[in-house]
Amino acid sequence: MAIITGEQFRESLKEVSPEIYIRGERVEDVASHPLLKQTVHHLAAGCDLLFDPELKDRLVVRSPISGEDIPRLGMHIQQEKEDLFIKAELTREISSRRICSACGSNMLSVTWAMIHDVDAAHGTDYLSRYRDFIIRIHKTGLPFAWCMMDPKGDRSLPPSRQPEPTDLRIVERKPGGVVVNGVKLHTTMGPCTRFVVAVPCRALGKKDKDFAVSFALPIETKGIKMIARPSPGPSRETSMESPLSSRFMGVEAMTIFDNVFVPEENLFMCGEWEQAGNLSMYFASLHRQSKCACSAGHCDMFAGAAALAADVNGVSGRASHIQEKITSMIMDGEAGYGCALGAAVNARRHPSGVWMPDPLIANSGLGAIRSKVGRHMEHLHDIAGGLIATMPTEADWNNPELRKYMDKALRGNPKYTTEERLRAMHLIQDLAASRAAGTIMAFTINAAGSPATNQVVVRRAYDLDKQIRYAKELASIKT
Amino acid sequence: MAIITGEQFRESLKEVSPEIYIRGERVEDVASHPLLKQTVHHLAAGCDLLFDPELKDRLVVRSPISGEDIPRLGMHIQQEKEDLFIKAELTREISSRRICSACGSNMLSVTWAMIHDVDAAHGTDYLSRYRDFIIRIHKTGLPFAWCMMDPKGDRSLPPSRQPEPTDLRIVERKPGGVVVNGVKLHTTMGPCTRFVVAVPCRALGKKDKDFAVSFALPIETKGIKMIARPSPGPSRETSMESPLSSRFMGVEAMTIFDNVFVPEENLFMCGEWEQAGNLSMYFASLHRQSKCACSAGHCDMFAGAAALAADVNGVSGRASHIQEKITSMIMDGEAGYGCALGAAVNARRHPSGVWMPDPLIANSGLGAIRSKVGRHMEHLHDIAGGLIATMPTEADWNNPELRKYMDKALRGNPKYTTEERLRAMHLIQDLAASRAAGTIMAFTINAAGSPATNQVVVRRAYDLDKQIRYAKELASIKT
Amino acid sequence: MAIITGEQFRESLKEVSPEIYIRGERVEDVASHPLLKQTVHHLAAGCDLLFDPELKDRLVVRSPISGEDIPRLGMHIQQEKEDLFIKAELTREISSRRICSACGSNMLSVTWAMIHDVDAAHGTDYLSRYRDFIIRIHKTGLPFAWCMMDPKGDRSLPPSRQPEPTDLRIVERKPGGVVVNGVKLHTTMGPCTRFVVAVPCRALGKKDKDFAVSFALPIETKGIKMIARPSPGPSRETSMESPLSSRFMGVEAMTIFDNVFVPEENLFMCGEWEQAGNLSMYFASLHRQSKCACSAGHCDMFAGAAALAADVNGVSGRASHIQEKITSMIMDGEAGYGCALGAAVNARRHPSGVWMPDPLIANSGLGAIRSKVGRHMEHLHDIAGGLIATMPTEADWNNPELRKYMDKALRGNPKYTTEERLRAMHLIQDLAASRAAGTIMAFTINAAGSPATNQVVVRRAYDLDKQIRYAKELASIKT
Amino acid sequence: MAIITGEQFRESLKEVSPEIYIRGERVEDVASHPLLKQTVHHLAAGCDLLFDPELKDRLVVRSPISGEDIPRLGMHIQQEKEDLFIKAELTREISSRRICSACGSNMLSVTWAMIHDVDAAHGTDYLSRYRDFIIRIHKTGLPFAWCMMDPKGDRSLPPSRQPEPTDLRIVERKPGGVVVNGVKLHTTMGPCTRFVVAVPCRALGKKDKDFAVSFALPIETKGIKMIARPSPGPSRETSMESPLSSRFMGVEAMTIFDNVFVPEENLFMCGEWEQAGNLSMYFASLHRQSKCACSAGHCDMFAGAAALAADVNGVSGRASHIQEKITSMIMDGEAGYGCALGAAVNARRHPSGVWMPDPLIANSGLGAIRSKVGRHMEHLHDIAGGLIATMPTEADWNNPELRKYMDKALRGNPKYTTEERLRAMHLIQDLAASRAAGTIMAFTINAAGSPATNQVVVRRAYDLDKQIRYAKELASIKT
Repeated sequence: MAIITGEQFRESLKEVSPEIYIRGERVEDVASHPLLKQTVHHLAAGCDLLFDPELKDRLVVRSPISGEDIPRLGMHIQQEKEDLFIKAELTREISSRRICSACGSNMLSVTWAMIHDVDAAHGTDYLSRYRDFIIRIHKTGLPFAWCMMDPKGDRSLPPSRQPEPTDLRIVERKPGGVVVNGVKLHTTMGPCTRFVVAVPCRALGKKDKDFAVSFALPIETKGIKMIARPSPGPSRETSMESPLSSRFMGVEAMTIFDNVFVPEENLFMCGEWEQAGNLSMYFASLHRQSKCACSAGHCDMFAGAAALAADVNGVSGRASHIQEKITSMIMDGEAGYGCALGAAVNARRHPSGVWMPDPLIANSGLGAIRSKVGRHMEHLHDIAGGLIATMPTEADWNNPELRKYMDKALRGNPKYTTEERLRAMHLIQDLAASRAAGTIMAFTINAAGSPATNQVVVRRAYDLDKQIRYAKELASIKT
Repeated sequence: MAIITGEQFRESLKEVSPEIYIRGERVEDVASHPLLKQTVHHLAAGCDLLFDPELKDRLVVRSPISGEDIPRLGMHIQQEKEDLFIKAELTREISSRRICSACGSNMLSVTWAMIHDVDAAHGTDYLSRYRDFIIRIHKTGLPFAWCMMDPKGDRSLPPSRQPEPTDLRIVERKPGGVVVNGVKLHTTMGPCTRFVVAVPCRALGKKDKDFAVSFALPIETKGIKMIARPSPGPSRETSMESPLSSRFMGVEAMTIFDNVFVPEENLFMCGEWEQAGNLSMYFASLHRQSKCACSAGHCDMFAGAAALAADVNGVSGRASHIQEKITSMIMDGEAGYGCALGAAVNARRHPSGVWMPDPLIANSGLGAIRSKVGRHMEHLHDIAGGLIATMPTEADWNNPELRKYMDKALRGNPKYTTEERLRAMHLIQDLAASRAAGTIMAFTINAAGSPATNQVVVRRAYDLDKQIRYAKELASIKT
Repeated sequence: MAIITGEQFRESLKEVSPEIYIRGERVEDVASHPLLKQTVHHLAAGCDLLFDPELKDRLVVRSPISGEDIPRLGMHIQQEKEDLFIKAELTREISSRRICSACGSNMLSVTWAMIHDVDAAHGTDYLSRYRDFIIRIHKTGLPFAWCMMDPKGDRSLPPSRQPEPTDLRIVERKPGGVVVNGVKLHTTMGPCTRFVVAVPCRALGKKDKDFAVSFALPIETKGIKMIARPSPGPSRETSMESPLSSRFMGVEAMTIFDNVFVPEENLFMCGEWEQAGNLSMYFASLHRQSKCACSAGHCDMFAGAAALAADVNGVSGRASHIQEKITSMIMDGEAGYGCALGAAVNARRHPSGVWMPDPLIANSGLGAIRSKVGRHMEHLHDIAGGLIATMPTEADWNNPELRKYMDKALRGNPKYTTEERLRAMHLIQDLAASRAAGTIMAFTINAAGSPATNQVVVRRAYDLDKQIRYAKELASIKT
Repeated sequence: MAIITGEQFRESLKEVSPEIYIRGERVEDVASHPLLKQTVHHLAAGCDLLFDPELKDRLVVRSPISGEDIPRLGMHIQQEKEDLFIKAELTREISSRRICSACGSNMLSVTWAMIHDVDAAHGTDYLSRYRDFIIRIHKTGLPFAWCMMDPKGDRSLPPSRQPEPTDLRIVERKPGGVVVNGVKLHTTMGPCTRFVVAVPCRALGKKDKDFAVSFALPIETKGIKMIARPSPGPSRETSMESPLSSRFMGVEAMTIFDNVFVPEENLFMCGEWEQAGNLSMYFASLHRQSKCACSAGHCDMFAGAAALAADVNGVSGRASHIQEKITSMIMDGEAGYGCALGAAVNARRHPSGVWMPDPLIANSGLGAIRSKVGRHMEHLHDIAGGLIATMPTEADWNNPELRKYMDKALRGNPKYTTEERLRAMHLIQDLAASRAAGTIMAFTINAAGSPATNQVVVRRAYDLDKQIRYAKELASIKT
C-alpha cells in the first residue's frame, strides 16, 4: 500500500542501515539521528498529510500504471494534462506551509519520458524495467532519492575528457549488469529515503557514452555512500526559536557510487548518449513549472508571516508602506502561480504520455519569481524590525528572572502576549535571517537550474525570427 | 454580415456625420480627415485581418447569440471558458503587430454580466434589449465606442454630491425614454465608430441612482459630441518616419452627452444603483486578463524591434548585454502571457454565462508586466543608440545632395542598406522616443485602471487571513 | 565681452550664414527658422540667466586664462577643484528648470587636458593655439558646437580599415594647414552656434594617425555642413501645449566636413594618435560627473511636476503611494547629485591643471540615476493619470463652444481653474508622453556614453584584485 | 593612553564583572565566554588595527578635546569637516574586511551636539560633564555601549502615556543624582564594553520630560543588566566553515536599567524634553552618512568574494552575466560611497562644532544602497552555485576516508586545491546563506533607522515647494 503514515515511514527507516555520514561520522540510525530529525519529520508530515480530510482527494491519486493509490506529488507519472494543474495547486499549498512539497513526481515523470525516447530510438525495452520500478515504489510508498547533478569538474570539457572523471559512469560491463562509479551532488533529503534513482544531467557526446547511464537501487546497496549536510534547522531542542526549520526542511547530500554493481533489471539507460540531454530539457519544462508554484507558496508564507509580524508589532493597517509591501509579495506569488497554470495550458503531450508544460512560460515565470526572493527577505526585515536580529533567545525567556524584564519591555500589540510577539519575531528570523533563510534563497535561486539557464531555455524556445520579421514589415525593410 | 472588409468599413463611415471636433474644428468627413487617418487605417486593417488565411479560423467566431460570424475580439460575448484562451492568444498576436487589438468583446461581455445581475435583482428585462443591440452590431459588423470613465470631479465625493455634476446621468424621465447629460472620458477610437455604448464606471450609492445608467445609441444621435485628441502619429505623409504610428494606433476622445434622449428600447440600466459597481469589478477581471496578453504582445514587438536594431547596427550576437536585455523583454512578456492563461484557468462562470478570469492572477500579472514598460523603453534606447534622437529626417534622406552624405556616414551592418538602417532606427524612435511611445506608456500604465487599482483588487481578493493562520500555526501562536 | 544677452546672441546669429539643412532644405536664417526657435530660445535664455541676480555670482566666472568674465558652464576651463562643485550645483539647478544647462565647459576642459598630453609627449605647442581659441570665444561669448562622435561604421574595425572611411580625418597635408573630410554625429545645438570644435572620439592605433585630429573653425567655414534634426518641440505656435519643449531643448545635427581646409593655427592635434584615447577617458570622468548632476535636476523637475499634477487632480496628500513615488524620484536625484559631489571630492589634478573627478563614483552614480528614467516616466503617468494621453488639445480649449464642456468636465482640485489643470496635464504630457520625453530619455541613457560604458570604466578603474585578496584572507586561501 | 592593543583590551575585560546573561545564564567571564568570543575578537582586532602601518595615520587622531591620541572611528568628536571624509574612507575600508567598523564616534558626536543644544537653551552646563566623560574614555581607550533605542511599546502613544512604561526614564530625583528605570534595545557589542551611554531616541512632549535623560555609567554599575543575543557566528571551533562570522561580527543585547542610580556628574540631560528629538535628527544625518560608506564596504566584500567564487569554480571571465553582476555590486557600492562623500561636501557646522552631513544626500544614498542587499545576496548565490547550501561540512573534510571522495569530486578550477574551493564556498555561505547573512541584512536594512525613515527625512528636508513653483512657471500656472 503506497499510502503510509508518518509512523510507518519512520519505522521503515529502521529496516535498513545505509552508509550515511554526517559531520564526519557514520550515522548509526537514520530515524533517530539528531541532525536528521527535521528531514524525517518533514517527510513523515508529508505522509500524514495524505490522510488530511481536506487534501487527500487531491493529494492521493490512483496510478494507472500500478493501480495503486499513491502520493500525487511524490510518485505520480503525469500523463494527464489535468495532473499539471492539480500538482501546481498542491505544490503551492504545501510550500506555503513548509517550504518544500517533495515533488518527486516530476523527476519520475521526466525520466519516464527520456527512457521512452531511448526505447523509441534504439528498440530497447528499458521502459518496462522502469515501470517495474515505479510499481515497486507505488506498492511500498517509500521515498526515493534523486541523483541527477554531476560535479562536472572543468565545465569547459565534456565528462569523458576530464583529467580525472568524477561524473557518474559505467566503468565495467559484466554479465547481468554493470559497475558504476562517480558522484552525484545535491541529493535533497537523500539520507532519509529508501531508493536511489540516477539519471544523466546533460547532453552528451558519442565519447561520453559511458556517462549515459540511469538506474534505480536500494539505498543500502553496497558502494552507495552519502555525505550529508545537516538541514538548516538547529540541532538543540527548541520550541520557540526556529519554528519552521526546527521541524521542516531537509538534509542535503553528496552521493558516492564507489564501484556499485547495477543488475540489468535495474538499468534504464546504458550508453544511449543521444537521449541523455532530453532529460534536462524535460526537467527544464516540467520541474520549473512546479517551481513557479512552489515559489508562489513561499510568497504566501512570507505574506502571512509579514502580516502577522506587523500585527504583533501593532502597526498593521497604520503604515500604508507595509500594506504595499505585503501586497507586492502576494502579487509576485500570484504572478508566479499564474505562470505555473499558464505553462500547463500550453503543455504538449510527449509520446510517452507525459505532459510537458510550455518551457517559455515556465522559465519566464520562474525567472521572474525567483528574482524577488532577496527583495522579499528585505521586506520581512523591514516589516518586522531590527528585533529579529537582536532579541534575546528562548533560553532567556525560560529564565523567570529575565522573562520578567522581557515580558514587559518587549510587549507589542496588546492583543498578543509578549511570548506570542517573540514567537512571531522568531518566525521572521527563521524565514529571513537564519541558515534556513539561506537555504530558502539557495532553493529559490539555484534549485532546478540557475537563473542563467532560464534565459538559455527562453532564448532557444522563443521564435525571435518571427518578431524580427514583424519589425521589418513595420519598418518596410526587405532584407 | 458582421464580417466586413476594411473598404466596407471605410464606406460605412460616410453614411453618417457625427458631431466630432478635432483641434477645435468640426470634422467634415471622418473617413478622410488627416488627423483620423491612422485610426481609420487601424480599424480597417483589423477588418481585413478577419480574412487572413492563417488567423481567420480563430479571429472569426459564430456567435450563439446572433448566429452570425463575428469578429471574436471585437464583438463576442465570452460565454465559453475556451474563449478566454483564444482571446488571449489573438490579443497578444495582434498587439505584437500593431499595439492595439481593439478588444471590444471584453466590454460587451462585462456589460452583459452586469445587466444580467440587474435583471436578476430587480426582475427587469434589460438583457433582452441588450441582446437585441448585440444582434444588431453582429449583423452589421460596425464598431462601437465604449463610454465608461466619468470625469469624477472631486474624487472624495460621490457623483450626486458634486457641486456641479459632470458624470453621465439621467436628467429627465419621459414617456418612452430618458434624457441623459454628462461626459465620458477616454473614448478610445470613438470618432471612427458607429455606436456609442455607455455604462457606469464605479460603485454607486442610493442617492446616486440617476448615475446608474447604461445604454447604446448611434453615434450620430443628436446631442452626442466628441472632442477628439489626434492619434499620436504624424499628420504629414511619411513613408519612413513613424512607421508604426503613421499607420496604426488611434484617436482618443472626450464624449459629451448634451441632453440626449435615450429611447426605452436602448436602455440597459436605469437607476439600479446596486449593480453599478459590478461592472468595474468584472472589468477588473476580464479586461485585465486581456491586458496581460496585450502587454505581452508589446514585449514581443519590442524584442523584435530591438533585435532588428542590434542587427542593423552590426552588434547582434557580439554584446552579451544586448542579448540579455532582449531576452529579459521576452521573458517579461511570456510571464505576462502566462498570467493571462493562468487567470483563465481559474476563471469562474458568472450566472450570465460570461467567464470571469481569476482577479488575483489577472491583476498580479498585469501589475508585473505594466511596471516593466519604462525599463523596456530604456532597453530600446540602449540597444539602438543615440542615433534615434539625433538622426536626420526623412526629408533629408529624400534630398539627393544630403542623402549622399548620409548614405555613407550612417551605414551600419553591411548586409543592410543605409536606408534600411534608418528605417529600423525610425521604428525604434516611434516605439521609444515619440508621442506614440508616450501613448504606449499611457496605454500600459493607466488603461484598464491604474497600477494602484491592481493592488486594491488583490488585497480584496486574496485570503490573507488563511496565510496569517498558517503563520500562527508555525509559530505556535494561539491568539 | 563674453557675457552677452539673449538678444545679442540672437543678433549674432544673423552675422553669418552657415550651411544648415533641415527637413531637406537649406536654412535661410538660423535666427528665425521655425524649427530652430526652441534652440535659439534655449540658448538665449541661457545668456539672459547670466544676469540673474541670484545666480550670476556663480554662473559667471572670471577666467584666469583670458581674464574675461565668462559663462562658467559654457566656457570655463575647470582648473580649480572648487569648479567641480559649483558646476555640479549649477548644472542641477538649470537642468531642473529646462533639462539642459549647455555644459560646454566640460568639453573645452577635457580637450585642454588632451592637448596638454600631446604637447608633453611630442614637444609640440598646440596648447598655445588652443588657448588662443579659448580666449577668442571668451571675448565674444559666442557658443560653439562640439563634434566628437564619429559614425564608426563597422565597429569591429579601426577607422583606417573601414571599407569606406567616414570618420573625420586628414586627407591632405598642405603648407599652412590640412584638409579634413568626414562626419561627426550628435552635434547638439550645433546649427545655432558660431564655432565648431572637432576632437577624436576613441583610442587609435598607429595606422589610424590621420584620424587623430582636433581643431576649431567658424561654423560658416566652406565645406562645413550640418543636417539638423528639429528639436522635439512642436513647430506650430502654442501657449498651453508642450510648455517645456515649445520653448526649450535643442536641435541635434549631423556635421559634415567636406574637404574642409584647417589652417595651422586652428589645429590642436595632427596625427598624434597615441593621445587620442585620452580625451574619451577624461570625458568619461569630467562629463559624467556633470551628468549625475544634470540627471538629478531632471528628477527635481519630475518631482515638482508630479506634485503639481497630484495637486491639480486633488489627490495630493491623500494617496500615500503617490507621496512615496514622488519621494523616490527626489531620492534618486539626491543620490545622483551626491555622486556628482562625491566624485569631485576624490578628483585628481591632471598636469594641465584640469581636475578629473573620480571615474568610479562618477560612472557608478550615472549608471544608477540613468537607469531610473523609465521608472520615473512611469511614475509621471501613474500620478497624472490617463488624461495626459486622451485630453483634448489647446485648439479645442480655444473654441468657446467646446471650452464650455471642457471647463466643467475637466475640473479637478477646486483651487485651480480647469485651464490650470489642463496646463499641468500638458506639462506632464510633455515630460513623459511626447517626443520631448523621448529626447529626455535619449539624453539620459545615451548621452555621455551608453550604460555599458559605465560598466567598462568601473571594471577598469576598480581594484578588484584587492578585494579578492581580502576574500582570500578571510577564507584562508593561499593561492 | 587611548590606543590600546587587542591584548590590553582583553585584559581590561577581566577587571569587571558586569551582569550579563546569555542563553538564560549569567556570564562568568566575558573575556572567555564561548558565545562572546567573536565579539571580543572583533573588538580586539579593531584595537590592533590602530597599529597597522598603512592605516594608523588615519585611524588614530589626536583629539583637541582631550589631547590624547584616540581611535578616530571609535571615539572622535567630529569637529572638522575633513573628519567626515576620513571617517567615510576608513569606515568603508574596514567594513569591506569585517562588516563592522565600530563607529562609536558618530554616537559621541551627535550626543555632543544635543547636549550643546540643551545648554544653549536652558543655561545648563551639561557639556562640561560630558567633556569629562569623553576625556575619561579617551584616556583609557576602552569601548562603550550605546543605548539609544527604547522599546516604545504601543507606538501610537507617547512614552508617558503607555499603560506600563518601559522606555528609559527618571523615576526618582535624589540629592546628588537620579534613579532611572527602563530598557534599551539593540545594544550592539554591549556586553564586551566597559561603559554604557544612554540617550533619548525620539522627540518628546512636555509630559514626557522624565524620559528626557542622558548619562554615562560604568557597565558594572548596580542595576545595569544585559541580556545578550549571541553573535551570528558558530559556537563550536571551526577553521574552515564560517570564516567571517567565526571571527568577526558581534553580540547584540537588551540593556535593562533596574532602578539605577546616576550621580549628578554623569548626567548629561535631565528633563529637557525640548531637545530630545534633536539627537535622532543629528543621528539621521551623521550616522547615515557613515552607513553609506559602511554598506559600500559590504559591496566591496561581496564583489571580492563573488569574484573569488567565480574563479574557484572556473567560470570567471567566461560568463559575461557573472562579470555584469560583480560590476553591478561594485557600482552600487561606489554610488553609496559617492553619497557618503557628497553628503560631507554639503555638511553644515552645528554650533557645537560638530559637522552635520547633508541629510538629503545621506538618506537618499543610504536608501539606495540598503535596498540592494537582497539583490546582492541573490547574486552571491547565483555566482557561487547551489553547492553553498549542499556541500559536506568541515568535519567531513577532516575525515580522511570522506575527504578522499570530496577531494576528487569537488575540484573546480585546477589552479586551486579542493580545500581552497571549499573555503571559498564556505565564505559565500557565511555571507549569503547563514545567520551571519541574516545579521548583515538586518544591519543594512534596519540599523540607523528603517528605510521608511529615510523617506521621512527626505520629505522634510527637500524643498518640494520650489520645484512645484518651477513646474508652475513652466506650465504658466498662476495659482
